[in-house]
Amino acid sequence: MPQAGSRNSLVIGVDIGGTKVAAGLVDHDGGISARSRGPMVARGKATEALGAVTSVIDALFQHNQGACSAIRGIGICSPGPLDPNAGVVINPPNLPCWRDFPLAAEVSRTYQLPVRVDNDANAAALAEALWGAGRGFRNVFCTTLGTGIGTGLVLDGHVYHGRTGAAGEGGHMSIDYRGPRCTCGKRGCIETLASGPAIAKRARLAADLAPGSSMLELAGGNLRNITSEIVGAAYARGDQVAREVLCETVDVLTLWLGNIVDLLEPDIIILGGGIAFLLAPFFDEVRDRLPSFCINPRSREIPVVPARYGADVGIAGGAALCSQMLQNDDNREPLVHSRR
Amino acid sequence: MPQAGSRNSLVIGVDIGGTKVAAGLVDHDGGISARSRGPMVARGKATEALGAVTSVIDALFQHNQGACSAIRGIGICSPGPLDPNAGVVINPPNLPCWRDFPLAAEVSRTYQLPVRVDNDANAAALAEALWGAGRGFRNVFCTTLGTGIGTGLVLDGHVYHGRTGAAGEGGHMSIDYRGPRCTCGKRGCIETLASGPAIAKRARLAADLAPGSSMLELAGGNLRNITSEIVGAAYARGDQVAREVLCETVDVLTLWLGNIVDLLEPDIIILGGGIAFLLAPFFDEVRDRLPSFCINPRSREIPVVPARYGADVGIAGGAALCSQMLQNDDNREPLVHSRR
Repeated sequence: MPQAGSRNSLVIGVDIGGTKVAAGLVDHDGGISARSRGPMVARGKATEALGAVTSVIDALFQHNQGACSAIRGIGICSPGPLDPNAGVVINPPNLPCWRDFPLAAEVSRTYQLPVRVDNDANAAALAEALWGAGRGFRNVFCTTLGTGIGTGLVLDGHVYHGRTGAAGEGGHMSIDYRGPRCTCGKRGCIETLASGPAIAKRARLAADLAPGSSMLELAGGNLRNITSEIVGAAYARGDQVAREVLCETVDVLTLWLGNIVDLLEPDIIILGGGIAFLLAPFFDEVRDRLPSFCINPRSREIPVVPARYGADVGIAGGAALCSQMLQNDDNREPLVHSRR
Repeated sequence: MPQAGSRNSLVIGVDIGGTKVAAGLVDHDGGISARSRGPMVARGKATEALGAVTSVIDALFQHNQGACSAIRGIGICSPGPLDPNAGVVINPPNLPCWRDFPLAAEVSRTYQLPVRVDNDANAAALAEALWGAGRGFRNVFCTTLGTGIGTGLVLDGHVYHGRTGAAGEGGHMSIDYRGPRCTCGKRGCIETLASGPAIAKRARLAADLAPGSSMLELAGGNLRNITSEIVGAAYARGDQVAREVLCETVDVLTLWLGNIVDLLEPDIIILGGGIAFLLAPFFDEVRDRLPSFCINPRSREIPVVPARYGADVGIAGGAALCSQMLQNDDNREPLVHSRR
């Protein structure tokens, strides 16, 4: 049987969402060579939801029979909260059918393979640290900017979980304690200031005050139809109001990253998700301004880079969880080695 | 020679400040059995400053000759920035005579003992994790609240240093990005909202609006003489204005701790320093309110406790650095073992 790190070994990465499951075969270098997908069953019996997951894994095996003998394990990104060490999904709001559900044990029993489970933000950070933009760095801060803001920490080469596995909720750090109320109940969380919906909200306010902005036109004349995608499209056309909206967003994001640098001084900062794509033209500005938002005298040396993985990040993340587990089992050493 | 962890072994902890040096003999349990102190030479030749440090260590040896054979190493808290791995002090603003100074190597050469150097916040966190309020916890967040706000992180049983040793500057995390300017240049750092000088500033504003407060009387009728100590004394007398000042401070501190919990989910939060002593009557309130300042569903289980060490924290911290280094050399395992 090939070893975890060998060039021929494969792992299966599984990405469980509230409405769909995706899986892929992932090689030793993080390349995804085959995919399958299907609907998720979020409500109903726990076994039905498990069946939705195994159907997608079954399809992957069936369509890649030549590769089956090289598959060494399965890693799964699941909605949390969950206990990554026990592989138990606790009580995800988006998957009410699973409550204290031993997902890792069930999938392991079905396929007779080792299985590792973690949440999507941690898995994404590990995939980037092992195979992506953070390859070769020991301390990686990875954030996924989208409808929400997720964060994952890879410290000293391993996912940092905290006391119960609930660390890495950096999207709910407040930078404005008297600011707007977040969906979580706190005020001024970066998620409520810089996520996709936050950008759309800023843009609606700005377009209302500047009716000449092309954002209104792109939204069919209805302010309420302005989305973060429309802000991006308007910016691409040269719209100054859209530019200001994005600059304001970059400002608060950079301050938040400055806080992260002062507390954790990561070796690299990785920005992923749809909003990171939208903000890509501003990455130089983030790098230039970071030193004014932290006291770290060498923050300028910390790379701020886009993520390698896009829509596939859940598959890669699941695979990374499994790959690191296998590697640790093989030699009890971190898979990430320092560049320093 | 006794082993690091043996009950008879001792280490020397040295606390270097801008104006004084203190040293102590520390046993396997973090107890301090002897002390010496002297003035620090902050300006002048590097060797003079080194001489100020070795004089204090020499005195400790001379007055404890019976214990000399049990001393296994020396740990030093020094003003930063510094490189803890190399034991080099880089360019501390408070110690301009040391620039890229190999402090660990120099002291080691003088005494023919292993030497470890780190900054005071990291050392304090380690002392609390090994011997103090955080004993038995793997992930310890320790903050020293005083004229400034220092933070130290012990993660998975070891001081977390970040990329260059400059992690743990949590006092300069902003929770109010449009707030008051901190001495560091950022806006709304917790240090500028909840340190001793910040409390005094709040109190001056409050006493100005409420001249009946006893704070003004305690300050000899001069608003500018109000200090955080006076706020504490007035609170102890039942002054409602002083109480409100401390409640406001507790509010922002708790929000900041909520941010820390969401990002790092430590096993325990330890509050030390003079301002923590001042706020001790409010610790229950911090614990009660923490859940409303983080999304962590089990934050109520995280202990928020006072530090073991007070004025001796630098000696204990230095000793802890050395003790862990010796322990790691002995068995390459973390000295802190999980309670979980």
